[in-house]
Amino acid sequence: MEIKKDHINFSVGPVRIPADIARLGAEPVPYFRTTDFSQLMLESESLLKKMMGAPENARAVFLTGSGTAAMDAAVNGLFTKSDKLLIVCGGSFGHRFCEISEAYGIPYDAIELENGQPLTAAHLKSYEAGGYTGFLVNMHETSTGVLYDMDLIGDFCRRNHLILVVDAISAFLADPLNMEELGADIVLTGSQKALAVPPGVSMMVLSSRAVERVFDHQPACYYLSLKAALKNGERGQTPFTPAVGILIQINARLNQINAVGVEAERERIRCIATDFRTRIQNYPLRMFSQAPSNAVTSLTPVSSEVSAFHIFEVLKEEYNIIVCPNGGDLAEKVFRVGHLGNLTIADNDALFAALDDLLRRGILHG
Amino acid sequence: MEIKKDHINFSVGPVRIPADIARLGAEPVPYFRTTDFSQLMLESESLLKKMMGAPENARAVFLTGSGTAAMDAAVNGLFTKSDKLLIVCGGSFGHRFCEISEAYGIPYDAIELENGQPLTAAHLKSYEAGGYTGFLVNMHETSTGVLYDMDLIGDFCRRNHLILVVDAISAFLADPLNMEELGADIVLTGSQKALAVPPGVSMMVLSSRAVERVFDHQPACYYLSLKAALKNGERGQTPFTPAVGILIQINARLNQINAVGVEAERERIRCIATDFRTRIQNYPLRMFSQAPSNAVTSLTPVSSEVSAFHIFEVLKEEYNIIVCPNGGDLAEKVFRVGHLGNLTIADNDALFAALDDLLRRGILHG
Repeated sequence: MEIKKDHINFSVGPVRIPADIARLGAEPVPYFRTTDFSQLMLESESLLKKMMGAPENARAVFLTGSGTAAMDAAVNGLFTKSDKLLIVCGGSFGHRFCEISEAYGIPYDAIELENGQPLTAAHLKSYEAGGYTGFLVNMHETSTGVLYDMDLIGDFCRRNHLILVVDAISAFLADPLNMEELGADIVLTGSQKALAVPPGVSMMVLSSRAVERVFDHQPACYYLSLKAALKNGERGQTPFTPAVGILIQINARLNQINAVGVEAERERIRCIATDFRTRIQNYPLRMFSQAPSNAVTSLTPVSSEVSAFHIFEVLKEEYNIIVCPNGGDLAEKVFRVGHLGNLTIADNDALFAALDDLLRRGILHG
Repeated sequence: MEIKKDHINFSVGPVRIPADIARLGAEPVPYFRTTDFSQLMLESESLLKKMMGAPENARAVFLTGSGTAAMDAAVNGLFTKSDKLLIVCGGSFGHRFCEISEAYGIPYDAIELENGQPLTAAHLKSYEAGGYTGFLVNMHETSTGVLYDMDLIGDFCRRNHLILVVDAISAFLADPLNMEELGADIVLTGSQKALAVPPGVSMMVLSSRAVERVFDHQPACYYLSLKAALKNGERGQTPFTPAVGILIQINARLNQINAVGVEAERERIRCIATDFRTRIQNYPLRMFSQAPSNAVTSLTPVSSEVSAFHIFEVLKEEYNIIVCPNGGDLAEKVFRVGHLGNLTIADNDALFAALDDLLRRGILHG
């Protein structure tokens, strides 16, 4: 079946792939149990650690799977029924951390936030010295566009001696992140967000403390074993046949970003986001999150008569533009405009031209 | 890092991708929470079921992960500590089924076979009426090249009312397989074998009995939940962001095979394998398995002085040809020549020209 692929893609992932990285996707996929491929993987590990500001003796692993595979592997690889976790639950990805912990019978408390609400010191206060061993947070709650105050969280975890797991799947490269300064033990990301490579691989950097914990535990899931991943990774290999093609694209992209520097790539994304946010103020669409990540802007129509999902549909069908719809309770209320991937100000121009037309047609007003 | 990709690829996967399918790998990866992508996935489900000879009311699911992800999902999704499994263990993939069952505390007995040895009625005899609930087998034990007698296994399972899980990761499209006639409940395969698409997706067809069992059980792994996969699959979706690009290539390839028919594709692979096996008889290399799959020919040097791994290395470094080395105990003793993917008789010619040269150089004789 043919499927349309030429939309301007403002989704939150998979995002638009840079042309030279996309071209690699058509090349032969080589046999991987070779020293050449091991060298490539060891280089990727080293580059990823550098870009995340990893502490000394940190390790990185690459899993063949969705971002959720990395969330699952981190939770079931580091924690057991004897732990007690604190989870920031401000949207569907925070909720996913809760579901994963529940699936493995790991006790947890959830800090429930309203959709779009930031986390504050007041929220954390009652959890001080609460007997927790780990803290799980989606640095950027991608479902609502909220970027959490990571300094606040880092301080809380240091003070309470908690293992800190940071899902930076959509925040990596979009927002400032230094694993060592933050005191994070695991930071996760995925191939299809700011790395702008096809989806299929998720990855993480682990502090030496996290690595030790992994080797002290029996993982609850065989396939997602971080122990096996770390062990095979010592020689640049994976326990099972990985998504070799995507790993080669990840390596090329890490080298590409390394050549300009992480700061330059982050600044590029920030500029696209800032351009969009400055211009969107003139439209009857309100920013849903007051603490947004540079990865995405979540928007809600000012008029309650206007359906956010309808805007997504009209942009897709009539303007060849993909924005990101929300699911569940937020489906009619919120849509998101992503700023990751190989987007330019000219793409923003095209989106605003479409929004101007929607205005003229009375679709943005109730 | 640049990595060499232009070898003639006789590995067992990733294999050589047909040119038109490879080209799709460079195209934009579309946003997937759309009705277009759902339609594509529902078409893939229907084509895969047809090609496996699925019984009525069967379902198919696609997982983002290695083939091992599908093995793991099948075991932990269908069985619990109250089951008792019988596992054919004739090589490293049989051993993997044992490890997976062990990881989830599912009781099992392993039928231990020597490397390269076929399974016979005599092996099964002592397990009749043994209180088993499930039977796990790698139809083709890819590590040694043995194709098991599936009629024998199907009859045993029917007689003993066992849930039959068939890992056909490398046998699918290479060897005759009809799920309904066999009475199999789950048949697994992967993207990078005969489907000849990049690695990163594994898939399976489930009988209605297997689907019922999945919904009756709580899966042991959150990410690999077949329950979530089946539920989301009803509308052509996946619970988490899948490897969208690879799924589009799988759909194109399923359509390509469907256009010529499964039998024609199987015959094409059989011809490549038969051509190779006829010609290899004149070389000092013995077939390691007397019951080979058409997917691969495993070979062992007649002279015990010759290292199989050395042959792999010389072919790779000096002739630009990749064959598949073995690991562990068999590393020095066995190498494999795959027949899957977009290979031709001309590729066999190139391999034999190289083997002729190795003969001349005295590398194949001890």
